Amino acid sequence: MVYELYYWPSIQGRGEFVRLALEEAAADYVDVARREGGMKRLMAALEVEEYPSFAPPFLKAGELTIGQAPNILMYLGEQHALAPRTDPGRLWAHQLQLTIADLVTEVHDTHHPISTSLYYEDQKPEAMRRAADFVETRIPKFLGYFARLLTNPEPREFLVGDRLSYADLSLFQVIEGLRYAFPRAMRRMEEEYPALTALRDRVAARPNIAAYLASERRIPFNQNGIFRRYPELDQ
Amino acid sequence: MVYELYYWPSIQGRGEFVRLALEEAAADYVDVARREGGMKRLMAALEVEEYPSFAPPFLKAGELTIGQAPNILMYLGEQHALAPRTDPGRLWAHQLQLTIADLVTEVHDTHHPISTSLYYEDQKPEAMRRAADFVETRIPKFLGYFARLLTNPEPREFLVGDRLSYADLSLFQVIEGLRYAFPRAMRRMEEEYPALTALRDRVAARPNIAAYLASERRIPFNQNGIFRRYPELDQ
Repeated sequence: MVYELYYWPSIQGRGEFVRLALEEAAADYVDVARREGGMKRLMAALEVEEYPSFAPPFLKAGELTIGQAPNILMYLGEQHALAPRTDPGRLWAHQLQLTIADLVTEVHDTHHPISTSLYYEDQKPEAMRRAADFVETRIPKFLGYFARLLTNPEPREFLVGDRLSYADLSLFQVIEGLRYAFPRAMRRMEEEYPALTALRDRVAARPNIAAYLASERRIPFNQNGIFRRYPELDQ
Repeated sequence: MVYELYYWPSIQGRGEFVRLALEEAAADYVDVARREGGMKRLMAALEVEEYPSFAPPFLKAGELTIGQAPNILMYLGEQHALAPRTDPGRLWAHQLQLTIADLVTEVHDTHHPISTSLYYEDQKPEAMRRAADFVETRIPKFLGYFARLLTNPEPREFLVGDRLSYADLSLFQVIEGLRYAFPRAMRRMEEEYPALTALRDRVAARPNIAAYLASERRIPFNQNGIFRRYPELDQ
């Protein structure tokens, strides 16, 4: 079976968490909207009567259509052994993914605290206030939490059990994104939490992930995605 | 087995989605922090070494500790037939719950667009801007989506299949909350989408839910929760 991923073609965004899982699993997939005529297919797929998603990403897997990135990852985790199949590991991996999703939403709101339908420039004073709080209180709270999981009560290689899970891939992506968007803040953070850098490096070195990151399939970070580099927000 | 729910004792918040599922299932549970000495137990449970949650709510179910409201609901759905056990229904119910969770986060940000650690009064101009956009573009988008699911291609009683699921309970809670926080906007919305009002009424009339809503276990909406009534935000 060939998976079909439906997501915006020019950004990493929430689709990237799914792409990383598909790549690590060496799954056969088409990134639909990046193909000729693909945007039309994406827009049409949002209007179907059965299982329409509120927003991309969504994944077609044979007869199934699955929306919401953490839900897609749960499914891919089951299919490709990217999470434990049984409790408590199954629920723990998903819980961590949902916490990462909360962080990602907060990252988005640093540059769009008022409305997604306005430009950044039209909400810049609010963005500066929100980003200052994000850098000062939220990044430390989230990253401190994940660092604690990787070090306490003893150092561990992976977030869940002793094998890679989709939660590790997602934490890698978050670290990469935060490095892009908040390089100053992240230098301090990574000094404080070397376990996060080590996790990031372990994921980046996995053969399938390394090949993906070096390929044209990996869309570079840019100023339309969730992680954006506005130096004035990184103080 | 007696479940233990860990959540803030004085608000509905995200814990309410879990409470509604426990009540519908007539499950035996303790709302830990509402008992004598319970806040101390809640704070201590956040500091455990195994499976610590980033934030409440979390649920203890025997040996399991499960955090993140949609994750808890997925688990309760499996245990108490509050969702289909097999795909695609299982994934669809969870997808809808995650979409509801996104809406709930946006509701919170209408009164706290800058920082959770500041008072509403210290971010009121930003809140007024964000709430205006929320009322104008986001409520219609979210509620239009759920109304479409309940009417298209034909009217249906429940969001998932032909039985109640936790997603219905959560949509009920969202409608109640939006009525409390944005009464003016909701009058217009419910006129436009009678299917939502009908779903809300069906859930409210279920014997276990009706008994719960009439009991002291149901914490009233108030100005510390996610849904807050600030008339200036409901224009």
